[in-house]
Amino acid sequence: MKSANGINLTMLCDFYELTMGNGYFKDGLGERVTYFDIFFRDLPDGGGYAVAAGLEQIVNYVQNLRFGPEDIDYLRGRGLFDEAFLDYLKNFRFTGDIWAVPEGTPIFPGEPVITVRAPAIQAQLLETYMLLEFNHQSLIATKATRICRAADGRAVLEFGSRRAQGISGAVTGARAAFIGGCAGTACTVSDQIYGVPAAGTMAHSWVQMFDSEYEAFVSYCRSYPTKAVLLVDTYNSLKSGIPNAIRAFNEVLRPMGITSCGIRLDSGDMAYLTQRARKMLDEAGWPGCTITVSNSLDERLITELLHQGAKIDAFGVGERLITAKSSPVFGGVYKLCAVENAQGELIPKIKVSENVGKITNPGFKKVYRFFNRDTGMAEADYICLRHETVDDAQPLEICDPQARWKRKLMENFRAVELQVPVFEKGKLVYELPTLEQIKRNCAYQVSTLWPEVKRFDYPHQYYVDLSEELMELKDRMLADFGRNAE
Amino acid sequence: MKSANGINLTMLCDFYELTMGNGYFKDGLGERVTYFDIFFRDLPDGGGYAVAAGLEQIVNYVQNLRFGPEDIDYLRGRGLFDEAFLDYLKNFRFTGDIWAVPEGTPIFPGEPVITVRAPAIQAQLLETYMLLEFNHQSLIATKATRICRAADGRAVLEFGSRRAQGISGAVTGARAAFIGGCAGTACTVSDQIYGVPAAGTMAHSWVQMFDSEYEAFVSYCRSYPTKAVLLVDTYNSLKSGIPNAIRAFNEVLRPMGITSCGIRLDSGDMAYLTQRARKMLDEAGWPGCTITVSNSLDERLITELLHQGAKIDAFGVGERLITAKSSPVFGGVYKLCAVENAQGELIPKIKVSENVGKITNPGFKKVYRFFNRDTGMAEADYICLRHETVDDAQPLEICDPQARWKRKLMENFRAVELQVPVFEKGKLVYELPTLEQIKRNCAYQVSTLWPEVKRFDYPHQYYVDLSEELMELKDRMLADFGRNAE
Repeated sequence: MKSANGINLTMLCDFYELTMGNGYFKDGLGERVTYFDIFFRDLPDGGGYAVAAGLEQIVNYVQNLRFGPEDIDYLRGRGLFDEAFLDYLKNFRFTGDIWAVPEGTPIFPGEPVITVRAPAIQAQLLETYMLLEFNHQSLIATKATRICRAADGRAVLEFGSRRAQGISGAVTGARAAFIGGCAGTACTVSDQIYGVPAAGTMAHSWVQMFDSEYEAFVSYCRSYPTKAVLLVDTYNSLKSGIPNAIRAFNEVLRPMGITSCGIRLDSGDMAYLTQRARKMLDEAGWPGCTITVSNSLDERLITELLHQGAKIDAFGVGERLITAKSSPVFGGVYKLCAVENAQGELIPKIKVSENVGKITNPGFKKVYRFFNRDTGMAEADYICLRHETVDDAQPLEICDPQARWKRKLMENFRAVELQVPVFEKGKLVYELPTLEQIKRNCAYQVSTLWPEVKRFDYPHQYYVDLSEELMELKDRMLADFGRNAE
Repeated sequence: MKSANGINLTMLCDFYELTMGNGYFKDGLGERVTYFDIFFRDLPDGGGYAVAAGLEQIVNYVQNLRFGPEDIDYLRGRGLFDEAFLDYLKNFRFTGDIWAVPEGTPIFPGEPVITVRAPAIQAQLLETYMLLEFNHQSLIATKATRICRAADGRAVLEFGSRRAQGISGAVTGARAAFIGGCAGTACTVSDQIYGVPAAGTMAHSWVQMFDSEYEAFVSYCRSYPTKAVLLVDTYNSLKSGIPNAIRAFNEVLRPMGITSCGIRLDSGDMAYLTQRARKMLDEAGWPGCTITVSNSLDERLITELLHQGAKIDAFGVGERLITAKSSPVFGGVYKLCAVENAQGELIPKIKVSENVGKITNPGFKKVYRFFNRDTGMAEADYICLRHETVDDAQPLEICDPQARWKRKLMENFRAVELQVPVFEKGKLVYELPTLEQIKRNCAYQVSTLWPEVKRFDYPHQYYVDLSEELMELKDRMLADFGRNAE
């Protein structure tokens, strides 16, 4: 699969995935079936939930895994790989299974969001790109839900391409922002490819190109009478920009019977300016003129502005969304959780750490979300081994794995498995939803979280519990490990 | 030019660049010659300098600007553009001039780093992609110079692909990190495309795949005897990882006469562990075994670790470099600084702001760097109008534009113009340096900055002064603006 500057995404892997692959190949471990989980440990911005995104791009990637002749030549030139391994790579295809939580779904620390079952060389090779795409888009989708919640129903437009961290930072970033609730983007190509509605008005340079601000506004209104959003802060918003905008609206739009138009403010104090602007526009007979603001906005500033009575209809959000500036890393990891031995038996694996929070959950697992049948709200998630089933007709006692005295009896709940099958034996078995469907799924799923979980500061920690059987397995493996380390 | 998922980078523009282009076209302003500067206002991380990067990708982009039939169809479908404008876009080529500061050069706030002279529609269209590429790569190159300076001669390896903000975040991010001083990357495709040396050892999963850590290490040493770097923290670094590594080195490498090898630590306290590890390795007869550490490193932690006597030979730096986590936005802007009127006369343009620091420098400009002839060190930068020349055989009094009583007499200096011609009438006239040359240029140019300018905290503010003529022009335009605003 070709990508940025025509690269083959199959080669977007950490070099160790290839050296390990070569090693597995030589040791006869290459076809050994392995199980890997993608999960994350910490929520960005100290928030209470994250939103999964990036699966569509991961699917495209997996479907197009190929090493071309130029890739094989490059690898041969490195002088580290056996010819037999390079031959193997020539016919490399993904033949394994993948389960994943659909895009737009809220996810929580420790949960297997994506699970891969595949021969060792294949599973190892997927690590970098899958993490990269999942981490990036989940980061931006999560941030977008925060910003859109702050905007409280007002439109949020993604304006950050110029400050994005690279091409895909802008293009798939706009896609993820749309999933998280943004109404549109400034990024034209994200509209062309993904259908994220692209919109735009004018830069300061437009105003400066004309002999006067008024002429610039009149010209724009003539060109786009039904979409006239005028940038009013090139010189002085209150003394010149807004009065000139009103003159231009009166001159061009009024005779055409158009009452919808807009202004945009890109500098100055937005609480003060928007209240003054609203008054001036209303008094001039333009109550249908919307006010859009932009300038270093994020969920904090938007909350404060609205609290202070700012009169804003739409927000243009740039660098603080497209880079998730306040928390720019989503820490998804890809960890081995089981292997099959030569006899095909499943051997769970655990990664021990001195930091208790970094110890992984062993085994081939799945996740349920429990919804209260009366309220429809999400009450807890429940990680269990793949062969377990939850019968939601029966009450179920769950307990916090970090604080086992905390127990909760689940009753009257509906249990929904979060992961869906995506690939079976290398074949895509998942019908990719449209971007609109993903966005709606996200809005609906986030609405099932209690407000306490969605608070920006010190949110309530959503319950993610382990089944008794999984907890016992983990305890047993840790005890074994402790004995062997003596 | 095709890119991420086969997109045409020409379409990676803010939608307003197209609506404005259509407007200019209708108003007969499309061919009006405009001058735009890329400059930035604030240094990331509160540092004392930044490093320019991304020009090579910008050159490729400009050379390949094209609207294909599918792009025209998409635009027509939006229902906003005149057919005559769409016809114009079909034959769109860049026919203007571009000057730029070469990659790897230190740059400072307010300086025109890239200057574009082109017909309005063309110049406007370049805005988003040029900024995106310049901002992203300059951000990462700047961060890399900080981290590499902290490492004080030890190798720094870029390990962050999996946490990068999208594909190009990883791939061109690794390129920029190399410019800034990194010795290599984990990202295979950045080696394949750009020649950034890719290296890698093993993941924890390698160790977990074998029945024992010792067997995993022996197998790796056998596969890569001359490049055996063993990850020793899967279970317990001091009790199991390092002893097993030593056993494997003794078993496999010693009989082959190999004395170079390595271990990598990815968790735990690096100051304590590396000192213990060094002692164990030396006592076991492996003084040639290097110690690489990784785990949430940046310039702060590296400085502290070395200060505490950590025994480290190389650093693997991930998310905090590839996202520039502590300061993840580089704020380059693209501002109109002049237009030619219908008679071809140059009319300087200024963007006024209530925030004095946001007022732009008007006119068609260039930048000199003054190097002391005795020390070779950079003393000040000097922005003047394009027609001015500095005679460095004569003393020159310069003054701080923000504090004009601060004057400094430059003597015994060599004046070097920072921008070089890149495009002339749409034709590339710049021979792109190799990545190695850029990296060397960066190391050399950064070495000409006084240590005071390179301090991490509260660095000395490097002088960036304006010529008398430029200052007078700016003063006059501000005074005119003030009078008109009355």
